[in-house]
Amino acid sequence: MKIGFIGAGIMGAPMAAHLQAAGHELVLLQHRSPLPANLLDGGATPAASAREVAQASDLVILMLPDTPDVEAVLFGADGVGEGLSKGKTVIDMSSIDPIATKGFAEKVAALGCDYVDAPVSGGEVGAKAASLTIMVGADEPVFERVRPLFELMGKNITLIGPASSGQIAKVANQIIVALNIEAVSEALVFAAKAGADPARVREALMGGFASSRILEVHGQRMLDRTFDPGFRIRLHQKDLSLAIDSARKLGLALPATANAQQLFSACVAQGGADWDHSAMVKAIETLAAQPLGA
Amino acid sequence: MKIGFIGAGIMGAPMAAHLQAAGHELVLLQHRSPLPANLLDGGATPAASAREVAQASDLVILMLPDTPDVEAVLFGADGVGEGLSKGKTVIDMSSIDPIATKGFAEKVAALGCDYVDAPVSGGEVGAKAASLTIMVGADEPVFERVRPLFELMGKNITLIGPASSGQIAKVANQIIVALNIEAVSEALVFAAKAGADPARVREALMGGFASSRILEVHGQRMLDRTFDPGFRIRLHQKDLSLAIDSARKLGLALPATANAQQLFSACVAQGGADWDHSAMVKAIETLAAQPLGA
Repeated sequence: MKIGFIGAGIMGAPMAAHLQAAGHELVLLQHRSPLPANLLDGGATPAASAREVAQASDLVILMLPDTPDVEAVLFGADGVGEGLSKGKTVIDMSSIDPIATKGFAEKVAALGCDYVDAPVSGGEVGAKAASLTIMVGADEPVFERVRPLFELMGKNITLIGPASSGQIAKVANQIIVALNIEAVSEALVFAAKAGADPARVREALMGGFASSRILEVHGQRMLDRTFDPGFRIRLHQKDLSLAIDSARKLGLALPATANAQQLFSACVAQGGADWDHSAMVKAIETLAAQPLGA
Repeated sequence: MKIGFIGAGIMGAPMAAHLQAAGHELVLLQHRSPLPANLLDGGATPAASAREVAQASDLVILMLPDTPDVEAVLFGADGVGEGLSKGKTVIDMSSIDPIATKGFAEKVAALGCDYVDAPVSGGEVGAKAASLTIMVGADEPVFERVRPLFELMGKNITLIGPASSGQIAKVANQIIVALNIEAVSEALVFAAKAGADPARVREALMGGFASSRILEVHGQRMLDRTFDPGFRIRLHQKDLSLAIDSARKLGLALPATANAQQLFSACVAQGGADWDHSAMVKAIETLAAQPLGA
């Protein structure tokens, strides 16, 4: 298939490479930064605008940083929207605003095209290993049609529901991950400060109701003080902003999510925008005036 | 062994029964409520005071509601302390204040006796099935000596460190459980309110970094609306009070734990003191003015 790929960055480049390796022909948007050499060597065609990418492809995948980027690429001047013709498909694999996504899906549908939102989790490691978790919002027949492409990039692929459901699930995922990090942070700092060995406490808690992937992986990172990302705090902040902004629009309150966002901000204030998100423990340690290991 | 057991209630009665079934001789405190018939039929001896229980036993186990109960039974008039003689052992399996526990352990040690704190998790079901998780604070030789008794009552038995470490681990456990419940509550209410099926979202998130025992068990309870306990909100509130009070004494802040306590209070305000703790989702739903299933 001829696939347009817009956003061949840290995540996008390895994802596109898996599609190319499976025999798909890539059309890439030539933007500011140079395109990955391996994709060009593999036969990918550069295009000068998002419009041209869409014209030259059967299906366009986006992997962009945030909602305004997706909006500009889709509906800005020389955007994907101008190059789409009936029957083509747009797959947005970025993690962006679920409510805005609903609007994007409607606009694309009005052009006679299919829209799929398919944000991922698993980071750069998962992108390279083709082991991403992919949460999909789409009509079922459309999902079945594009599923083989997802299977080239990920492992845990779930259709959540109609367009925007993928983005909703991703936001829910990021809420839980942030709050579970705060849970482990408060518990281990409490344990250390109260005089117990936080490593023994983590171990004892792993078998019971407190067990989680975050206690396992990020709890160990907190003990080892390995805060190189992983997943950067500034990216998790973007995701929690999606949660908090959407919640306001939907008319519901997310008190713990809002609180976790403030703790990430406390890390940023200490210079930690690019720390791994498990470094939220440092904000709790500041509140305890003593690091976990001291 | 001759074992004094003080607090043969909902949790304590089945725990004591396992000890008796293994051939240990029980001495029970005859307090206000009648003693369990099965224990008396099994040959347990009633005693009129905690002092007499301690006098008649080699080892005394406490399973009481809260810190003041333990303090009164240990050091009040006619208490365990008055009946202890050198070489006896006190095991407190209640979930109580870790800082107060340090003091209790010192006082018991001053009498020439060993003190073990060994709070449990797993609830009534775990007590009956002898599958409790037991978090132990004790000196290692003392732990090795009493471990065979724990093995009659539980499965996941961990020595965390010296006296009070068991209580610290239990508090850490309850912090994580409460915050993971809040994480799942906010995520699923967000998903539902944003228009996705929360059951599909839960399913999709189970494989990734958001996975936890709470997402698995309590997430399903929230979807099924089965809020019969389980573990009662008023008991979890007691445990979070231990966390928050201890944190204040230790000089550290637990912002998310304090927040979760308020949400439990919001449930109590709705008449939910005896709801299962997964019903915290109802407090979040109130903030969203719409139940998860609507």
